[in-house]
Amino acid sequence: PTKAKSRRQMWDVKPSEMAVNTLNPIRAIVDGMKLTPNPEKPMIALSIGDPTVFGNLPTDKSVLQAMKDAIDSQKFNGYAPSVGYLKSRQAVANFYSCPEAPLEGEDVILTSGCSQAIELAISVLCNRGDNILVPCPGFSLYKTLAVSIGIEVKLYNLLPEKSWEADLQHMESLIDERTSCLIVTNPSNPCGSVFTKEHLEKILKVASKHCIPILADEIYTNMVFPGCSCPSIASLSSDVPVLSCGGLAKRWLVPGWRMGWILIHDRNNVFGSEIRQGLVKLSQRILGACSIVQGALESILNDTPQSFYSSTISFLKSNSEICFNKLCTVPGLNPVMPSGAMYLMVGIEMDHFPEFKNDVDFTERMVTEQSVFCLPASAFEYPNFFRIVVTVPEEMMVEACDRIQQFCKHYYRPPSRDSNDLDQ
Amino acid sequence: PTKAKSRRQMWDVKPSEMAVNTLNPIRAIVDGMKLTPNPEKPMIALSIGDPTVFGNLPTDKSVLQAMKDAIDSQKFNGYAPSVGYLKSRQAVANFYSCPEAPLEGEDVILTSGCSQAIELAISVLCNRGDNILVPCPGFSLYKTLAVSIGIEVKLYNLLPEKSWEADLQHMESLIDERTSCLIVTNPSNPCGSVFTKEHLEKILKVASKHCIPILADEIYTNMVFPGCSCPSIASLSSDVPVLSCGGLAKRWLVPGWRMGWILIHDRNNVFGSEIRQGLVKLSQRILGACSIVQGALESILNDTPQSFYSSTISFLKSNSEICFNKLCTVPGLNPVMPSGAMYLMVGIEMDHFPEFKNDVDFTERMVTEQSVFCLPASAFEYPNFFRIVVTVPEEMMVEACDRIQQFCKHYYRPPSRDSNDLDQ
Ligand SMILES: Cc1ncc(COP(=O)(O)O)c(C=O)c1O
Ligand SMILES: Cc1ncc(COP(=O)(O)O)c(C=O)c1O
Repeated sequence: PTKAKSRRQMWDVKPSEMAVNTLNPIRAIVDGMKLTPNPEKPMIALSIGDPTVFGNLPTDKSVLQAMKDAIDSQKFNGYAPSVGYLKSRQAVANFYSCPEAPLEGEDVILTSGCSQAIELAISVLCNRGDNILVPCPGFSLYKTLAVSIGIEVKLYNLLPEKSWEADLQHMESLIDERTSCLIVTNPSNPCGSVFTKEHLEKILKVASKHCIPILADEIYTNMVFPGCSCPSIASLSSDVPVLSCGGLAKRWLVPGWRMGWILIHDRNNVFGSEIRQGLVKLSQRILGACSIVQGALESILNDTPQSFYSSTISFLKSNSEICFNKLCTVPGLNPVMPSGAMYLMVGIEMDHFPEFKNDVDFTERMVTEQSVFCLPASAFEYPNFFRIVVTVPEEMMVEACDRIQQFCKHYYRPPSRDSNDLDQ
Repeated sequence: PTKAKSRRQMWDVKPSEMAVNTLNPIRAIVDGMKLTPNPEKPMIALSIGDPTVFGNLPTDKSVLQAMKDAIDSQKFNGYAPSVGYLKSRQAVANFYSCPEAPLEGEDVILTSGCSQAIELAISVLCNRGDNILVPCPGFSLYKTLAVSIGIEVKLYNLLPEKSWEADLQHMESLIDERTSCLIVTNPSNPCGSVFTKEHLEKILKVASKHCIPILADEIYTNMVFPGCSCPSIASLSSDVPVLSCGGLAKRWLVPGWRMGWILIHDRNNVFGSEIRQGLVKLSQRILGACSIVQGALESILNDTPQSFYSSTISFLKSNSEICFNKLCTVPGLNPVMPSGAMYLMVGIEMDHFPEFKNDVDFTERMVTEQSVFCLPASAFEYPNFFRIVVTVPEEMMVEACDRIQQFCKHYYRPPSRDSNDLDQ
């Protein structure tokens, strides 16, 4: 009975701290919004980061055929190694290898989506109490994952007036001895921006100076508009070690298939075998990607016609231009033209919309009145902006922009004379 | 410069504690073994828990067709909800619902394999510093996952002489106020044992008395030999909350596809909405199963012919009997006849094999001399046993047993007179 005392006498099952601390800012904000569209206008959702929802951007036939071939072969039903089939890893290595940043099969770890790639990369580099540097505005998953395992997130600013380049001084000022990883998202979600080679080199300099490894989220790599180049960050440095995370989701338009990867770039041998081993061990926790998709991967990478990639890109560019050009003419809005990915950020001059408290309020009312839903950028910790996904069919994009214009016209208030003039 | 001092001046990137603490006992043991087969005999691996490796147990054609239909439909390329498509969840609920333990779609969470189901279940129930009760011998993943996130593992014994029933007294003695989950694996890996209804009820009594929720690893459910019944543990209790983990891997013979699930049984409303919400939140970290497999799931569950299941089971039973009957005749070995799953455990009377230090040594030499590899049960924290996987083709099973017999015959030493007699 001495021991019995210390046991539970009543049911009292509570979710763990980790579950409680797994916060999804997009859900937190969207679930708090009253999203009741105007019954007189069909809803247009410019909020969903899934390019497949409208059916206008199907994946290539060859991609589907590769999957069916993998199934028919009956060679890919068993357990794959936890880091993936070597042949599939080699296919990814070949696809992304370049003279400045060569890759072999062993440098590739296949994962369940880019999300798991990011999870493994953060998990291997960071301990409880460490901190990581994360772009702001930025993809919310970094914070969700980090905070849930006791890692602090420090946000470095991206500058809209400089096409969303990183504020390097701000970035550097955040670094301390517990900073164990710098996350660079390029091209960017939510900005659609693409860093120049020169800017990437400056970021590398900061990492090099303070000896911080880089987690490069390059899921949108190669998804850049014609004329814009997008070198991988690893190809620009031989001393800074880089874990580059990517996957099939965006460029091949199959996000549901959960096929991702980590490319290990470590030409200076900083990670050494220890980090590699750590990644292998972590991959054994739940194993990675579906073996059928792994089996199809070599063919997906090698046989998808160039025309598929380029027609996706021209569509995204054209839709971005339609949206940007239209919203440029709307007083009170400041769209920032993207160079890649599938997003466009729009600044709201809140001063001119006194009716609304903030971006959440603004976008909520745009649903109620115009049945257009754009994600308030508070979801990316960046208030007074909203994000538009440019994958919707062109006619929807046009219609949506018209409605946004109507909405803004209705609520826009010109600068009041006094405040501005008196200040000068 | 004050701050600069606290920053790193040299590269020093080490894997995280979590990576270092992700231990895989099977790998640790197998990687330490010298596995050089006898060049005169072809290798027979009875160690691999993957039923697909020898090609004798293909999945059903209807399962492959369901996948191809899901691909052709082009409806399953986008992101599924993080807990899975509702229709697929409903299909799982229908498949496993029974009057004693009814299930709806919302009670099902789809995951990337049963491994992720187990990870989510442990993660939602347990905090750092808690402990969980785990069967011994048992599947090693529980410990791998728990230890890596700071949860202590307490092993309760299974009793070979009682067909691997749990030692309930031992189990109960391990419970303290930090015990947050009792794991029950039924049918068992590595034992192939199946608990009776009565034994399950006794386990439930322990859980109920001490108010400990159960994580039921039921990945081998329904894989029991004819004549043996295997009720789900949740169907036998209405007060103990159960997270039942399962998946397609074993019964449908497609472990590489990474399709698993959690069935939430909570008729007493102990988990309530909090644990459910916790599971949903955790599922958003990396999302779950491949959308194509999810899309195929309803058809896989509903259209796989009964004959497929029963022919798999008869094969497993027949192979188990061949193996058991043969090894029963071998002095020094004590096989335990399984009732399900795909494994058979064999005790080694180490006293009679003075040549060998332990089960690892014993099985290693069996490779060197007989080219037969059985997993030493030290990998399941259960020394002096080895595990045989009974999914290999029949002729290999026969040949392997012959060689095991030869090996044992060569090294067996009868009881020395003195020790035994003098003791009495
Ligand atoms: C920047 C970024 N990284 C990672 C991901 C996740 O990719 P996946 O769906 O492959 O997990 C996304 C998805 O939207 C993303 O925008
Ligand atoms: C008892 C048990 N649980 C869970 C698993 C893992 O299943 P999955 O491959 O679906 O992750 C296995 C695999 O061998 C197992 O034996």
